[in-house]
Amino acid sequence: MIRIGIYGYGNLGRGVEKAIKLSNDCKLVAVFTRRDPKDLKIDTLDAKVISANDVLKYKDEIDVMVLCGGSATDLPTQTPYLAQYFNCIDSFDTHANAYEHYKAVDAAAYNARKLSIVSVGWDPGMFSLNRGIMEAILPCGNDYTFWGKGVSQGHSDAIRRIEGVLDARQYTVPVEAALESVRNGENPELTTRQKHTRECYVVVKEGADKARIEKEIKEMPNYFADYDTTVNFISMEELKKNHNGIPHGGFVIRSGKTSDGVNHVIEYRLKLDSNPEFTGSILLAYARAAYRMYKRKECGARTVFDVTVADLSTLSYEDLLKHTL
Amino acid sequence: MIRIGIYGYGNLGRGVEKAIKLSNDCKLVAVFTRRDPKDLKIDTLDAKVISANDVLKYKDEIDVMVLCGGSATDLPTQTPYLAQYFNCIDSFDTHANAYEHYKAVDAAAYNARKLSIVSVGWDPGMFSLNRGIMEAILPCGNDYTFWGKGVSQGHSDAIRRIEGVLDARQYTVPVEAALESVRNGENPELTTRQKHTRECYVVVKEGADKARIEKEIKEMPNYFADYDTTVNFISMEELKKNHNGIPHGGFVIRSGKTSDGVNHVIEYRLKLDSNPEFTGSILLAYARAAYRMYKRKECGARTVFDVTVADLSTLSYEDLLKHTL
Repeated sequence: MIRIGIYGYGNLGRGVEKAIKLSNDCKLVAVFTRRDPKDLKIDTLDAKVISANDVLKYKDEIDVMVLCGGSATDLPTQTPYLAQYFNCIDSFDTHANAYEHYKAVDAAAYNARKLSIVSVGWDPGMFSLNRGIMEAILPCGNDYTFWGKGVSQGHSDAIRRIEGVLDARQYTVPVEAALESVRNGENPELTTRQKHTRECYVVVKEGADKARIEKEIKEMPNYFADYDTTVNFISMEELKKNHNGIPHGGFVIRSGKTSDGVNHVIEYRLKLDSNPEFTGSILLAYARAAYRMYKRKECGARTVFDVTVADLSTLSYEDLLKHTL
Repeated sequence: MIRIGIYGYGNLGRGVEKAIKLSNDCKLVAVFTRRDPKDLKIDTLDAKVISANDVLKYKDEIDVMVLCGGSATDLPTQTPYLAQYFNCIDSFDTHANAYEHYKAVDAAAYNARKLSIVSVGWDPGMFSLNRGIMEAILPCGNDYTFWGKGVSQGHSDAIRRIEGVLDARQYTVPVEAALESVRNGENPELTTRQKHTRECYVVVKEGADKARIEKEIKEMPNYFADYDTTVNFISMEELKKNHNGIPHGGFVIRSGKTSDGVNHVIEYRLKLDSNPEFTGSILLAYARAAYRMYKRKECGARTVFDVTVADLSTLSYEDLLKHTL
């Protein structure tokens, strides 16, 4: 059994815990938290809850540490630090800083002769993997990434900060006409507005000025101004009933030619009931791969671009060839 | 430049040649043929056409040999033989014998300290890769493979062998209702008949008994009897005009749960104008990977389950992280 630690127990940490329960080769040893461990109830009866301060005491009891903090402030320091002591998996998802992050973790892990895999998830992650393969296969073409329909936590938070708003949920929705154009191999040039719309469900305080709130949302720079945005005011009851999940998904589509007039379209699509549970499942599969790579004496940082299916799979190589190939 | 040889110059060989023209790191050195080299015209002006009998003379001039023969009789002997002298790529696609084939090539390549990648293409190949990753990520679920809409060469040939038939084209078509059920996460149990239909376009001799031909097609065991089959009699002119291409494609869809009531659907889809050109493009990307793995002193046989995106891609690792991740 591969002994797993979960570092950070929010939605993503709980998603990894659920994935461990469905696996037959991984076991949760401990959850590490910055909260008071006494206050944290986890789902796994035989796993420990430990203060993040004591994490180094578990150096020899954990094969792979799955980091479940945020990319803004947690992972940039946590992964390079923990990579000195553990094989680590993280889901660092700030695309613009991913290379820097990789370099920092690579140095730490290499010095320690440990193996870390960074920026694992679905985007970056599965989507990156597909973009990479698609481009290698069809060099003469374009790829397109669409997100949704799904809840954007950042955009929902932005709406919640507006005066008079009690709660809000924002869905990013791909524009069907744009998807169809890409699927038809038309290789369109698409603006931000042509690719996605934004749907907002907003609960306001009694007597709040809805017209002002709607205007503030629609004109918010970066978040909404460049999109066609619809705002729906609903009751708290309706929000809780119909908008309680964290669904997400998206599409990576590449359209490319191999000769004059001969076009091909590759499409990879995700439709997820729960973003953190799906991401947690991916993190666990890469934890398995990290453990195997470490056992083969590999060290340093890796990304999804470096990991083989054989290392991700629980099947023997013979079974992969007989049943999956 | 990676020096490529093409062994066998049918539709697939021509597809590989087209892919080489679009690549910036591969160069076609020679096409090897069992025909008389004088009778073979190829598209690449500065490449040679050589008799297959002389292939060993090119041992030191070719970095990777791409085998473009058939799986029934060519590849089972050609790949193990050539793997002793060259790094090889093949598209061996008889699923039932893939493991045996892999073992035979592995022994040959390992002894020669060469690297071969077998069963490359889209199914087996891209579809296998996706089935493997999907199952690793969502262990608790089912995957479904649908083919089409596309031309099945084997089924077209079977129709041509019927008395009175001049030519024929058979399309395999996925059943839309079955696709939708899978996409909706209903995890249906599907019979052969429920997954695909077969559409036949048939040109017959003047005065041929169409009713008898239609009956023979629809009742043909293995090929058509288990499917809902439609037979359309058309003129040779119409066949040449509307059914001259070799389009294909298909879907791999996995639906799986991560906890009670929480479902996810992953879909990988191909829509190909030309089956052999797309397959040729995949073979070339894996030729690049084989060359790099060989340069790192790897040897033996590999499949798509062993190859990383970093090895398939023409991008530097830094560019992959900065632009593709």
